[in-house]
Amino acid sequence: MERRNVGILGATGAVGQRFIQLLADHPWFNITWLAASDRSAGKTYAEACAWRLDTPLPKRVAEMVLQPNTPEGSATDLPRIIFSSVDAPIARELEPKFAAAGCAVISNSSAFRMGADVPLVVPEVNEAHLDVIEAQATRNTSGGYLVTNPNCCAIGLVLPLAPLHQRFGIEKLFVSTMQAVSGAGYPGVASLDILGNVIPYIKNEEEKLQEEVAKLLGGLRVEGENARGFQLADLTVSAMCNRVPVLEGHTECVSVKLRKPATREEILDAWQDFQPLSGEGHEGLHLPSAPLHPVVYVEGDARPQPKLDLDRGNGMTTTVGRLRPCSIFDWKFTLLSHNTVRGAAGAAILNAEILAVLGKFDFRKFPPIGLALEENAVPA
Amino acid sequence: MERRNVGILGATGAVGQRFIQLLADHPWFNITWLAASDRSAGKTYAEACAWRLDTPLPKRVAEMVLQPNTPEGSATDLPRIIFSSVDAPIARELEPKFAAAGCAVISNSSAFRMGADVPLVVPEVNEAHLDVIEAQATRNTSGGYLVTNPNCCAIGLVLPLAPLHQRFGIEKLFVSTMQAVSGAGYPGVASLDILGNVIPYIKNEEEKLQEEVAKLLGGLRVEGENARGFQLADLTVSAMCNRVPVLEGHTECVSVKLRKPATREEILDAWQDFQPLSGEGHEGLHLPSAPLHPVVYVEGDARPQPKLDLDRGNGMTTTVGRLRPCSIFDWKFTLLSHNTVRGAAGAAILNAEILAVLGKFDFRKFPPIGLALEENAVPA
Amino acid sequence: MERRNVGILGATGAVGQRFIQLLADHPWFNITWLAASDRSAGKTYAEACAWRLDTPLPKRVAEMVLQPNTPEGSATDLPRIIFSSVDAPIARELEPKFAAAGCAVISNSSAFRMGADVPLVVPEVNEAHLDVIEAQATRNTSGGYLVTNPNCCAIGLVLPLAPLHQRFGIEKLFVSTMQAVSGAGYPGVASLDILGNVIPYIKNEEEKLQEEVAKLLGGLRVEGENARGFQLADLTVSAMCNRVPVLEGHTECVSVKLRKPATREEILDAWQDFQPLSGEGHEGLHLPSAPLHPVVYVEGDARPQPKLDLDRGNGMTTTVGRLRPCSIFDWKFTLLSHNTVRGAAGAAILNAEILAVLGKFDFRKFPPIGLALEENAVPA
Amino acid sequence: MERRNVGILGATGAVGQRFIQLLADHPWFNITWLAASDRSAGKTYAEACAWRLDTPLPKRVAEMVLQPNTPEGSATDLPRIIFSSVDAPIARELEPKFAAAGCAVISNSSAFRMGADVPLVVPEVNEAHLDVIEAQATRNTSGGYLVTNPNCCAIGLVLPLAPLHQRFGIEKLFVSTMQAVSGAGYPGVASLDILGNVIPYIKNEEEKLQEEVAKLLGGLRVEGENARGFQLADLTVSAMCNRVPVLEGHTECVSVKLRKPATREEILDAWQDFQPLSGEGHEGLHLPSAPLHPVVYVEGDARPQPKLDLDRGNGMTTTVGRLRPCSIFDWKFTLLSHNTVRGAAGAAILNAEILAVLGKFDFRKFPPIGLALEENAVPA
Repeated sequence: MERRNVGILGATGAVGQRFIQLLADHPWFNITWLAASDRSAGKTYAEACAWRLDTPLPKRVAEMVLQPNTPEGSATDLPRIIFSSVDAPIARELEPKFAAAGCAVISNSSAFRMGADVPLVVPEVNEAHLDVIEAQATRNTSGGYLVTNPNCCAIGLVLPLAPLHQRFGIEKLFVSTMQAVSGAGYPGVASLDILGNVIPYIKNEEEKLQEEVAKLLGGLRVEGENARGFQLADLTVSAMCNRVPVLEGHTECVSVKLRKPATREEILDAWQDFQPLSGEGHEGLHLPSAPLHPVVYVEGDARPQPKLDLDRGNGMTTTVGRLRPCSIFDWKFTLLSHNTVRGAAGAAILNAEILAVLGKFDFRKFPPIGLALEENAVPA
Repeated sequence: MERRNVGILGATGAVGQRFIQLLADHPWFNITWLAASDRSAGKTYAEACAWRLDTPLPKRVAEMVLQPNTPEGSATDLPRIIFSSVDAPIARELEPKFAAAGCAVISNSSAFRMGADVPLVVPEVNEAHLDVIEAQATRNTSGGYLVTNPNCCAIGLVLPLAPLHQRFGIEKLFVSTMQAVSGAGYPGVASLDILGNVIPYIKNEEEKLQEEVAKLLGGLRVEGENARGFQLADLTVSAMCNRVPVLEGHTECVSVKLRKPATREEILDAWQDFQPLSGEGHEGLHLPSAPLHPVVYVEGDARPQPKLDLDRGNGMTTTVGRLRPCSIFDWKFTLLSHNTVRGAAGAAILNAEILAVLGKFDFRKFPPIGLALEENAVPA
Repeated sequence: MERRNVGILGATGAVGQRFIQLLADHPWFNITWLAASDRSAGKTYAEACAWRLDTPLPKRVAEMVLQPNTPEGSATDLPRIIFSSVDAPIARELEPKFAAAGCAVISNSSAFRMGADVPLVVPEVNEAHLDVIEAQATRNTSGGYLVTNPNCCAIGLVLPLAPLHQRFGIEKLFVSTMQAVSGAGYPGVASLDILGNVIPYIKNEEEKLQEEVAKLLGGLRVEGENARGFQLADLTVSAMCNRVPVLEGHTECVSVKLRKPATREEILDAWQDFQPLSGEGHEGLHLPSAPLHPVVYVEGDARPQPKLDLDRGNGMTTTVGRLRPCSIFDWKFTLLSHNTVRGAAGAAILNAEILAVLGKFDFRKFPPIGLALEENAVPA
Repeated sequence: MERRNVGILGATGAVGQRFIQLLADHPWFNITWLAASDRSAGKTYAEACAWRLDTPLPKRVAEMVLQPNTPEGSATDLPRIIFSSVDAPIARELEPKFAAAGCAVISNSSAFRMGADVPLVVPEVNEAHLDVIEAQATRNTSGGYLVTNPNCCAIGLVLPLAPLHQRFGIEKLFVSTMQAVSGAGYPGVASLDILGNVIPYIKNEEEKLQEEVAKLLGGLRVEGENARGFQLADLTVSAMCNRVPVLEGHTECVSVKLRKPATREEILDAWQDFQPLSGEGHEGLHLPSAPLHPVVYVEGDARPQPKLDLDRGNGMTTTVGRLRPCSIFDWKFTLLSHNTVRGAAGAAILNAEILAVLGKFDFRKFPPIGLALEENAVPA
């Protein structure tokens, strides 16, 4: 696989730093372009950013100069693959411009996740949704497009749900979350608000979780031979989202009602067998960021725990535990997901990897970015 | 109200310390007897106990000498009212002995909560269950008996449930908890296990919560004119219990399915109107530990919080917030309860107060404790 | 003592909220004026402020309308006593304007603490420094003036130092602090930075601590009969300041070298006897916020602790423990001080109380504020 | 280097688990023997131990059967190299037995650290002290001996002190610590005691720190050609030790008085140049656990921090920051050290590595362990 140049929009934020950490030695991608806010353009990354991760800031990145956060700003050098981790209002404005300019925008933002022709993808779960990318060509002819990954809680949840949904059908589910502060970015949650405390609310989080799961587990809306959009899964989610004094790792308590009965063994088997990216038809895929097992069940009363299970599968595996019958629905379990790796930067990178394998980064038939910029002016 | 002598069994533990703190200036009760484990008998309280509360240990209590933890040990001075906060296995052995000796044992232990003739009481919710005390006379004729308060999570939960159950009927509910470390006693949860972490399991907690709510909201089983036992309420509870790094205050996320539809206003009214201990028939009750409002609803997205709402009603009020429709059941809300005040020592003291008012501490017709001890030997 | 009207500048911040909490039922002062930033002027306090204390926001204050933060903005109603808790750069601009307008500005800000004619006062330590207020009349004739209280760490430290300095003389001292996040205001320290972490740096804190102690323990510079300024104490302080994940309460580890030898008993006596505000010449003072004992020594290896000792003397007492010989200097000890009560709002209120008693709030001989405003225009 | 069999005494404790984690893939050592308390002998390691580290328990170790914790218990299979991490009172009893039996006991316990013929060693600092091992032959002829590593705080501290002491001489120093809870083992510090709190005391810690630094920086007492004991360094340490709510990583604030003046650059150079294990005479040493740089200085106001700097050099490097002049002594700085890696298990393993290189594991001239056991009975 040839190494492709990529850019990061929102490079200095909490998720932006994770992008840099995870892409530093990536075999397929090479960071050549960074942008953050307007006021940091022109500074080196090291000047503009207070690095807060516990691995060193790569020297090469430290010295890169931040670009203006518009495609026009650095048109000739703009890479065709842009990872985006800007806040939703900014994403709503900027991401379509980059797509119009001819970039594949792989976004962690919530702005366009529920868009009618925007794939919301977790590769192990609904890779097929990427077909809808073609539908975006009606909006721009530059070859650019937008692909999103879900909310951090939805990703961790949908991984163990997917194999259950395939085998038994999920009718409804309750999920109650205990979410880490890193999910709120930086500076994010004030220490005065969360030290020794629980905040029983995260803005829009319950809504996102409820609607994104239905899109992720849903199907395609096909017209003729073409995927034109999405069909929501016929299931109901009720979410209760909370912030707890944990640095990294979202814990979620789940109870599911299935359409077909399932024994404990059948459920554990469904998780154990869930290897969608290395299964039939995928031999030789080997996406660098894909964990061998997207879902791992751990025995023991008191698992999973952020302290013990966060980094499983390099932070890309959802760890599940405490499978037990529910007195109201069918089965209850608890899951843990790394919210800034699998739940954010890692999710977008995995999306980029599957796009690469599927040939969605082949831009040869499209005009170069400079030209596309002229032709695809985005209306205000 | 004359001031009555009381004793505390398990006086040096976390809940025992709360008993001492809350009883220090109690208008109706006077601590005259303390016991902890065998090995601390004979020491002063100050010697035997590392006081860990943020109000000073009362000097008078500090100097009291710990008694052996059996009724025989200090028979002549044994008060007829014993608060108990020993662990379940010890309670199972000791509490019946004190009851047999003629003491009203008001216990925070889980050992006998589900006993067929043992009232499990939250005064605002099921005061009538105290009638079953008489049924215990079949076991001993000393005048002694056993009354229990629920698990810390069940108390906080049943207060807002009770008025909803009365008005609309509760059919089922999900509850997911985030519980403080003080609920595990001392030394309890190791800091290595909980700092920056979530432990998604508390031994037996889900089971207790599920069964105790049904007993609390249930009715009496009457034979002839006499209450002989209890009838569980016809509702189903599914609980998911978690430990979080919070010192005091259990937060619970609840979703309820009602038997009759209720609007948001009707639910808020039900909570607002819920003043069972000062309502009709209770004029002049004025239990010293009873909060004016057992349930208080706070507006605001992110409430209740342990940091902000713990001490409402001197720690005896359940604070509720975030009432919102549920996509699966009817209504979701979040509650906070002070787990070592309303959820433990304060609960038992309130039980003692209602017992005092109901005349259940009138032991004149029973033999003195010394005599009862001889007559009511408990079989090993 | 007649009840005087007071205003609060910076009323919505962390310290501003403490002012409101502590002044809510103050016997001598009555809040009639509130101001925060420009953009909050015109809103009610409840609208402008996210109340974050665990006692309820007083209803009367909630409904007060925030004024512009200049004396001109509400000249006629401006009270003559203004508590200020704005950040240093803003204090540097605003506080002189209020003083020029005729207000006694009692500030918690660091802006003017080291000013040549500005008293930096802890009443128990250097009440006499208030005489220098008169020297400020050279700058304005409105009757207004500026009085400051020290940095939160310096207050907690100087209380146990003062009686040692009086009796034995302090030559030098090391102090290493572990400071609560509330000291950084709101939002202050990001949870991502401090959860489970130590930050070994607080901007300018070591410098403040080192210089303020010398001013506090120093004397007056007298010309003729008039106190014209201050003389720094002849001692050297070396400070090392750290932030730890504690909500309230600064812990400080101290080692002192004395000029005269002192036994353990002599030191404990010095602290025990330290009752400057109720001693000779102060009979009948009874400042409402003054603790009976400004310094209390607690026995026990592991004391003081924020969890156990924070609220001693309603948060106005410095708790000291672990007095032991030092292998390099003379004595080591550890202290705890409530950083937003004694270390901020409570300190300023106590300063106001001593000013009231000393007659420094008698403005009858000065022009009313409106007039003063015209006459005392502060040059830009 | 041939792979040697090693055993672990105290294998299930917090440090024992670190030994297993760090030795799992060690190129020179192979775990063949494990012991914990008497009551766990006979169980598999997985049965006896609640694994609490965030890397998986190695499967091979999980299935090993715990041996009795005496040399007699498994004499024939007892390896000659025993890592010990039992508590001091147990170490005092058991470690001499293993040494008498012919084992090299490499201990993390404090029991014998200050022993007159027991090396207390940090290889980069005082490797030469290992010569005193020979002096132990007077006590037993089995070839066994005892080597210790310092207290966790002393190790982190002595690394940056050593090059300063070599170049400039240290006369005295203050050190104030903020120590992680993992230093207290498991269950160790109760969460009720430390959540949101500071405990300003750790039993015996200040004494250990003060005396161990003097031994570590001291020299040898030579008689004739033989090293017979140690000479304490002529310096004075004053320590103030505190526990803070941090999981891993001890932070220490230091102020040193030097015998010769040193500029900032000279100090930074001393640290930068400090590569004792790869310097002259050590070419080709390459101890697997030795960090390339034992001391690394990080720029930036607010460094080092546990969150950012803990794992430098795989947890074997002391990170130093905030070098600045001291108003009383010469220089102040802050350091961070990984207390259960460099401060415990990693320290012992590094000691074993240097012993291996120095030929101290060549037991060919000594009797086999079974025989030694008979000949070297330790008197009760």
